[in-house]
Amino acid sequence: MKTMYWKDNHLFILDQTKLPHEIVYYQCKNYQDVIHTIKTLMVRGAPAIGVAAAFAMALAELAGDDLEKAAQEIKSARPTAVNLFWAVDRILEAKSAGISARDEALKMFEEDIQTNRRMGEYGARVIDDGDTVLTHCNAGALACVDYGTALGVFRAAVEQGKTIQVICDETRPVCQGARLSVFEMQQEGIPVKLIVDSAAGRLMQEGKIDKVVIGADRVARGGVANKIGSLMVALAAKRFDVPFYVAAPKSTFDSEISIYDVDIEERDPEEVLYFGECRVAPEDTQVENPAFDIVPSDLITGIITEEGIIEPF
Amino acid sequence: MKTMYWKDNHLFILDQTKLPHEIVYYQCKNYQDVIHTIKTLMVRGAPAIGVAAAFAMALAELAGDDLEKAAQEIKSARPTAVNLFWAVDRILEAKSAGISARDEALKMFEEDIQTNRRMGEYGARVIDDGDTVLTHCNAGALACVDYGTALGVFRAAVEQGKTIQVICDETRPVCQGARLSVFEMQQEGIPVKLIVDSAAGRLMQEGKIDKVVIGADRVARGGVANKIGSLMVALAAKRFDVPFYVAAPKSTFDSEISIYDVDIEERDPEEVLYFGECRVAPEDTQVENPAFDIVPSDLITGIITEEGIIEPF
Repeated sequence: MKTMYWKDNHLFILDQTKLPHEIVYYQCKNYQDVIHTIKTLMVRGAPAIGVAAAFAMALAELAGDDLEKAAQEIKSARPTAVNLFWAVDRILEAKSAGISARDEALKMFEEDIQTNRRMGEYGARVIDDGDTVLTHCNAGALACVDYGTALGVFRAAVEQGKTIQVICDETRPVCQGARLSVFEMQQEGIPVKLIVDSAAGRLMQEGKIDKVVIGADRVARGGVANKIGSLMVALAAKRFDVPFYVAAPKSTFDSEISIYDVDIEERDPEEVLYFGECRVAPEDTQVENPAFDIVPSDLITGIITEEGIIEPF
Repeated sequence: MKTMYWKDNHLFILDQTKLPHEIVYYQCKNYQDVIHTIKTLMVRGAPAIGVAAAFAMALAELAGDDLEKAAQEIKSARPTAVNLFWAVDRILEAKSAGISARDEALKMFEEDIQTNRRMGEYGARVIDDGDTVLTHCNAGALACVDYGTALGVFRAAVEQGKTIQVICDETRPVCQGARLSVFEMQQEGIPVKLIVDSAAGRLMQEGKIDKVVIGADRVARGGVANKIGSLMVALAAKRFDVPFYVAAPKSTFDSEISIYDVDIEERDPEEVLYFGECRVAPEDTQVENPAFDIVPSDLITGIITEEGIIEPF
């Protein structure tokens, strides 16, 4: 199942807010529609929002919009993942070289799948037959165009004939683990179990987790930024000597800056106050809802990229 | 708001599964009714289920039931909190000494409040004016007869004139933090904010948490057992040098055994698959749902008891 496709000069985006209950594609007729899908998490995951941003530029080009203005608006859709900036800048460079935004976006769409397959091949080397592996959030096909980063590693291990068991953290508040990662693994026929985020430490303490693999929204000097909760999983992995890997394509890298200078998005309190339609907390509850964590390098065993496994820097 | 009261030889238990939306007391006419309220989490929290168990014995006595049989059934309602065993055994000892179960239960009811007030006084000494304090789950008035253990410490600090800000983890899967601790602090007029469980590490990394205080379901050699998620909070506190306290009355202590020999309850998968009435995960999702964590002693700064603050052992 692809997270997006390009047809008749429109972009169709799988509305992930409706998963796993409904499979619906949202038609984007202009770049503003794409920004809407990014802000509302219909499309999410660093690689996927990068490619969606590239297609947004293609829609702007086709409509004859001011490309510099469109570029600024698209970049400000979400602050933490660097892929948005990377994708928009790559389109602008292509345009300078006489390549259309649409052609470049289609190329990036294909590249994303190939990149993930290469990451999967490298990453699968650290997964042993019989491993139980934990992941947080969804760094799967649904976070990319297809195949996935962290879940791509699991897919590749299974394609190599290894038997694995996947444990997914539910990943409050938006539950990408429960809704998306469990769904993806089920579709693939890979054995999967769901836990609440706060149970990961207990399972590691009991020796029930052999490896952790997560994705990243940004890799920079000193660590990685990834979904809120990644830091606490990394701390538990460190305590109980569980290897902790980050699967991230080079488009996620931003080696110029310190990870502590990355802008961490604060999202709507409603995400925490509700669970789908169900209200949990009392009226007038104050909330703090940071969307991302910073995981320091000393907690990371290795970063799985399309060029091999590297040490955090 | 008391979690239970005794009237006309019946026990009335506040149905906490309906909080914060409805305030309803459930009438227990026999000891089996009390077991039902314990199993379904209408009443929860180690001190509260201890006192409820004592009243269950009183109901068994009044009905002329076989007290040994009732004692066995009550003790098996939930496996992790030692207070159930402590309370039932204390009633049996009182009976041997010629004291009625009802009189002893009423004494334990009053004692619980006094114990918490003494714990609060000791605990408040480690809370500084201006502190932001984090708690996990609900170790509040709602986990006891009244006043609370961890939240009792916060109440006492405020009674001493200190200004504090409380942060509550929502505490998936049953959300005792979001539903109960936030509610209690709001009722008390103490400033309170809600976060998802997995955001505690981020807040500590940012220097936004000065102290952590949680409750305990059992204190034994090597650590404490408390709500799932307590371990990951403790690991984050250790990493970021945040003092981590456990507030637990002596009735929670079981110094004969190792904490690793405590039976950790595995609860219904439905708690994880749903959030109130809202289904999150796909059909046929497998779940692991341990209800408690073990927090090793080296992660604990001190244990606040009614006799003073002691070192973990």
